Amino acid sequence: MPPAAVRRVACVGAGVIGGGWVAHFLARGYPVTAWDPAPDAEAKLRRLVDAAWPALTELGLAAGASRDNLTIASTLDAAVAEAEFVQESAPEDLELKQDLLARIDAATPPGVIVSSSTSGYGMTEMQERCATPHRLVVGHPFNPPYLIPLVEVVGGERTDPSAVRWAAEFFKVAGKSVIVMDREVPGFIANRLQEAIWREALHMVANGEATPAQIDASITEGPGLRWPMLGPCLTFHLAGGEGGMAHMLDHFGPSLKSPWTRLEAPELTDDLRERMVRGCEEAAEGRSIAELVAERDRALIAVLRALDGVRNGR
Amino acid sequence: MPPAAVRRVACVGAGVIGGGWVAHFLARGYPVTAWDPAPDAEAKLRRLVDAAWPALTELGLAAGASRDNLTIASTLDAAVAEAEFVQESAPEDLELKQDLLARIDAATPPGVIVSSSTSGYGMTEMQERCATPHRLVVGHPFNPPYLIPLVEVVGGERTDPSAVRWAAEFFKVAGKSVIVMDREVPGFIANRLQEAIWREALHMVANGEATPAQIDASITEGPGLRWPMLGPCLTFHLAGGEGGMAHMLDHFGPSLKSPWTRLEAPELTDDLRERMVRGCEEAAEGRSIAELVAERDRALIAVLRALDGVRNGR
Repeated sequence: MPPAAVRRVACVGAGVIGGGWVAHFLARGYPVTAWDPAPDAEAKLRRLVDAAWPALTELGLAAGASRDNLTIASTLDAAVAEAEFVQESAPEDLELKQDLLARIDAATPPGVIVSSSTSGYGMTEMQERCATPHRLVVGHPFNPPYLIPLVEVVGGERTDPSAVRWAAEFFKVAGKSVIVMDREVPGFIANRLQEAIWREALHMVANGEATPAQIDASITEGPGLRWPMLGPCLTFHLAGGEGGMAHMLDHFGPSLKSPWTRLEAPELTDDLRERMVRGCEEAAEGRSIAELVAERDRALIAVLRALDGVRNGR
Repeated sequence: MPPAAVRRVACVGAGVIGGGWVAHFLARGYPVTAWDPAPDAEAKLRRLVDAAWPALTELGLAAGASRDNLTIASTLDAAVAEAEFVQESAPEDLELKQDLLARIDAATPPGVIVSSSTSGYGMTEMQERCATPHRLVVGHPFNPPYLIPLVEVVGGERTDPSAVRWAAEFFKVAGKSVIVMDREVPGFIANRLQEAIWREALHMVANGEATPAQIDASITEGPGLRWPMLGPCLTFHLAGGEGGMAHMLDHFGPSLKSPWTRLEAPELTDDLRERMVRGCEEAAEGRSIAELVAERDRALIAVLRALDGVRNGR
C-alpha cells in the first residue's frame, strides 16, 4: 500500500507518548484504533486528546479530522487486526518491548509496517522475537508528538530497507519532519545532543557551578532562542562571518581544546573539516550568510514576540 | 553612581559583538561612544546599526532612542573619558585583552565599571595588568546582543563583589536577562552547554553517524523548539510526569549509563538528586506540572506559528 493511501492507524500503548500520537493522527484526519492494558487508559487517553484538541484546531486540522474517529480496542489483536500502520509506544523496557512487538507482529496483517517510539533501544535488539522482523522500524518522536514535528526513522539488522523508506514517506504524508538514519546509533541523533547538554548540566549542578534555574535561564534567555530556526551547525556557520563554517573551524578550532565542557572533542582532521563545511553548505540550501542572518533575526523577533504574548497571557 | 542613573555608555571594539552592543544601548536610549582601531570600523558599525534598527523598532525603542546618539571616537582615551559604563568587545586573544583592558582601565574615570564580552577567558587572567582591577567584570553576551537577552556576569579574583552586583543591576536596567555566577568556570554556563552539543555533533559527523543537515534538523524540528521556553532541567522535570524531576531521576537515572553521548555522566548521588529536585522546584516558580505543560504547549504553538510566518515570508 502506498503511504499516502493509508487510512487506518493503530496505536499500541496510550500513555503520554502513545496518546500524543493518537492526538496527532486524529488531527491529521486518520481513524485511529488504540489499545493500552492499563485499566484507566481510555479515560486518560480521552482527556489527553481533549486537552490537545484546541491547540491542534488552532494549528489547523486536516479535512475530516474528528475526535470521533478514535476507537478504543479491548484487545491488542483487535487494535491491529485491520491496521494499515501500527505505532507502538510502550514503556522503555527491553523485555517488554521484545515481547509486545512479537505479539503485534503476529496479529498485524502481513506487509503492514510496525513502528516503535523507543527513545533508546535499537530495533535489532527489539525485533529479536518477531516472526516477520523485516517490517519493523523505529519511529522515534519527541514530546508532545502532536506539536513537535521530528521523527527519527531507522531500521534494525533484520529490517528491510524498503520498510524504512516506506515509514519515512508515511510519516511525511502524516505531517511529520523526518530524519532517516542509515545505521543504529544509541539514542539516535537528537537524544545524543540533548543528553550531552543534560550531562554537562548535571556536572555543573553536582559541582555547585550553577543551579538548575541558572542552567535553564542560560538556555531560554540565550542560545535556546536561536535553536528553533538554526541548529548547532548553522549557528556556528554564522559565527564564522562571511567565511562561514570554514573560517569558524580554522579560527575557533583551537577552542575545541578549551575546558569549556567535560566532553572531549574529536580531532579536527581535514576530513572532519571538509564534512562540516560541505554539510553546512548543504544545510544552508543556497542561502548566503547575510540571508541566514536576516532570516535568523526575523525569526528571533517573531519568537520573542510570540513568547512575550504567551507570558503576558499567563 | 546608581546603575539606573547611567547615561553615557562606551563600547570599545565594534565588530559583530561590539556593534551589537552599540545597537542595543542605542535602542535602550543611551548615548553611546564607540571606538575600534580598524580603518573601516565606522562604516561597518553604522551599517550594522542600520540593519538592526528596523528589528529594534519593531520590538520597541526606549524613549529618546536614536541612531543620532552614536558618537565615533578617534581614540580609545576619547571614547572612555566621559563614560559611565564601558563594554569591551575585542577579538578573543588573551594578550590583546590584557593589554586593552589595562589601557581602558587607565583612561576610564575612577569608579566606572568596565565589562568584557569575552566568551571564554576568566577575568582573573584578563585583569592582570590593570591598575584598578577591582572594577573589571565579565559581561558575556550572546549573538546578536541586541536580540538575545542573556548576559553572564562574573568577576575575577581581584574584582570587588560590589562591582559584580553593580554590573548585574546595570545590565538589568539596560534590558538584559542577567545570570550572576559566584565563581569563574571556563566557558561560563551557556557556552559549556552549547559546547557539549557542538562536540557531540562533531563526533557524529566525524564517525559518519549523521550529517550537519541532519544534526541541525534534529534540533530545529525537535527539542530546539522547546528550549526557548523550557531549559534542559524543566524539560526533564516535565518528562517525569506528575512526579516531576524526582520521578524522572529515580526512573530514568539508569539512562545516564546509556551510551547516548560521548560525555560521561556524573554519579547520581543523593546530593545531586536533591539539588536537581529543589532546583527545579525553584525554577518552576510555583507552577505545577500541568501548568508548565499547558504553558509549554501555548508557547510551542506560538513559536510554530511565528516560524511559519517567517518561512512563508522568505
